[in-house]
Amino acid sequence: MTDQDSASTDTTTAEEDAAKRLAALPLRDELRGQHPYGAPQLNVKAMLNVNETTYDVPEDVVDAITKEVRRASATLNRYPDREFTLLRQKLAEYLNRDLVSDGASADLTADHIWAGNGSNEVMQHILQAFAGPGRTVMSFPPTYSMYPLYARGIYSEYIAGTRSPDFTQDPQDVADQIRQHRPHVVILCSPNNPTGTALGLDVVEAAYEAARESQTMVIVDEAYGEFRQPGTPSALQMLPGRPRLIVTRTMSKAFALAGGRLGYLAAAPEVTDALRLVRLPYHLSAVTQATACAALDHSETLMANVEKIKLQRDRIVTELRRLGLTPAPSDANFVFFGGLVDKKAAWEHLLADGILIRDVGIEGHLRVTAGTEEETTAFLESLRRHLQTQRAGAQNHKG
Amino acid sequence: MTDQDSASTDTTTAEEDAAKRLAALPLRDELRGQHPYGAPQLNVKAMLNVNETTYDVPEDVVDAITKEVRRASATLNRYPDREFTLLRQKLAEYLNRDLVSDGASADLTADHIWAGNGSNEVMQHILQAFAGPGRTVMSFPPTYSMYPLYARGIYSEYIAGTRSPDFTQDPQDVADQIRQHRPHVVILCSPNNPTGTALGLDVVEAAYEAARESQTMVIVDEAYGEFRQPGTPSALQMLPGRPRLIVTRTMSKAFALAGGRLGYLAAAPEVTDALRLVRLPYHLSAVTQATACAALDHSETLMANVEKIKLQRDRIVTELRRLGLTPAPSDANFVFFGGLVDKKAAWEHLLADGILIRDVGIEGHLRVTAGTEEETTAFLESLRRHLQTQRAGAQNHKG
Repeated sequence: MTDQDSASTDTTTAEEDAAKRLAALPLRDELRGQHPYGAPQLNVKAMLNVNETTYDVPEDVVDAITKEVRRASATLNRYPDREFTLLRQKLAEYLNRDLVSDGASADLTADHIWAGNGSNEVMQHILQAFAGPGRTVMSFPPTYSMYPLYARGIYSEYIAGTRSPDFTQDPQDVADQIRQHRPHVVILCSPNNPTGTALGLDVVEAAYEAARESQTMVIVDEAYGEFRQPGTPSALQMLPGRPRLIVTRTMSKAFALAGGRLGYLAAAPEVTDALRLVRLPYHLSAVTQATACAALDHSETLMANVEKIKLQRDRIVTELRRLGLTPAPSDANFVFFGGLVDKKAAWEHLLADGILIRDVGIEGHLRVTAGTEEETTAFLESLRRHLQTQRAGAQNHKG
Repeated sequence: MTDQDSASTDTTTAEEDAAKRLAALPLRDELRGQHPYGAPQLNVKAMLNVNETTYDVPEDVVDAITKEVRRASATLNRYPDREFTLLRQKLAEYLNRDLVSDGASADLTADHIWAGNGSNEVMQHILQAFAGPGRTVMSFPPTYSMYPLYARGIYSEYIAGTRSPDFTQDPQDVADQIRQHRPHVVILCSPNNPTGTALGLDVVEAAYEAARESQTMVIVDEAYGEFRQPGTPSALQMLPGRPRLIVTRTMSKAFALAGGRLGYLAAAPEVTDALRLVRLPYHLSAVTQATACAALDHSETLMANVEKIKLQRDRIVTELRRLGLTPAPSDANFVFFGGLVDKKAAWEHLLADGILIRDVGIEGHLRVTAGTEEETTAFLESLRRHLQTQRAGAQNHKG
């Protein structure tokens, strides 16, 4: 037995021991045998697997965050503003500018806004108030893989709806599925992760109308909303007169603030009142509030990077088509593409070149984040080489 | 009708409208008619109502936080370390120093540590894994008022145990109550909030032994642990060999970091493995991790303030006795005292003097945070005047 074998055996034994000790605890039954969620956090040249903004945080944003956090630090001995009023005001102002860019009227105030430590916590608050045990949560896979975990986390039943074979959603089909299942909460993801395509407002409207009779809360998850194509409006403009509609956003993507953990939503004021009943008090630290406010004060600088990323995103779609692959139209900062003979081989080839992208578990498909121009070039070149090698191999095999 | 009446009527109508709109939403039944948790956040001279450290954050700590957050800001475009490894290491080292100060052996590692956005989230994680629907959570009122809310938040049944008439807890009585109710999770609060007194390890041991047959998880909430009297050991030293024991702490109090929201716990490594199954990924932001690490690097500076606060705490107990009141022995940064003829009048008199303390809803009792020497003096002087006025009034009434 070599040293390596021995080490490997020791690891296995340690893992088995840990699993046994975990199993001996009075865990809830549905958690037994589960494994923690987690995308790999590998440190390679191009990390294009979790849809982060790959541009460095601009220097003026770093300065602003530092300044605001320093100011907040002086009174960290006190509990933070439980109502995070200034942050809610700034988020409302920012979303109003988004509404105006869609040609819609800008009437959001702080009363329409809620926020949490990442969209994760915002979703948890919504489901705690409107789903929970004995209630159901529905979404339409392939979609964001956390939705079933949110449901499990608050002991709700998860209902997996369906999509067209090309992963799009048809208004009538969405409405029919909602009328059939009558879920307590339905989540539409637009632009959808992992496929990247945004929904037309006709789909959201059909979903809301179908949800009316079952009093279903309708969430439109616009985590990637800022990357949408021109002419694709946000669901924000549909909020007036729809008290059971919620539009969620995050600062993780367009604001380059994944590490700052700030998710938020816009909805009728009574929805935010409902969330006040389930949030644990002081859930947003003074440091988080200061960081997010500083970034919001510099949204123009940050949105300049969004435009650069959209260019690379469009370039990826164009180039992947040229390579004979089938990218989905993307309104996000990533591209989902099919047509791979062996997705695992492609993923491994890219990783060997220092490029980490995401295998989302769909046959023949992978997902890549749009990064900087250099990262996009490296990704496209590496993938081109892989496809050439593979086609040459297939040719030889035939010959 | 005066303008004031009119304004007051408008407010009531607005509130009634808001309540009606909230009631029209498909809220969970158990949330209907509930009100959000919240201690008043009034801005007065001496805010002694929520057991914050009233000393300003020391300048070197502000500098360190600023420096670490600046460093973290440069990569905020990336998700944070999901395992917050450096923070867990620093927390383990800090608790090991606490163990050594108790004369116990210091064998905690990062594997024993878990953390969240405040103790609130740490408790939520524990209850999500080990309580939840169909399970029960027990604590012993009067104790921290959030415990029933934690239980409600994850749809568990809450069981209210009882204490001796003087609010202390007897080992045999605690054991009997646990054997009777067989809760899934039991929370001991030591030092107890709002009464301030710590439990002997005999109580923790009796609880753990009684909990053995029902496989109950036992939490000892030591949020105020650093303020304990000399000779009162932490339950940390009881962890080895007790896989269902959890000791929770917070950086809100001794570390003067209420605004930073960092709660944590020490337990067997398999307990932290269980919590990884329920935590939402990346729950601790890079900014929160940086802030907490910076404060931990300056624990000596911060613990110097703890010693000053303990002096004021002991002074309050001594002086309240001299005033003829009945303060409970305190191992915390606050004092719970009885003997008030009219607690509401006393509370209002203090507030009129710019001193905000806490009415925890117990007849004849109030709770005051130990602040700076000046704040303590102002509190004692104001209370002395109130008692004099009141006794003079009673005298006149008799005469």
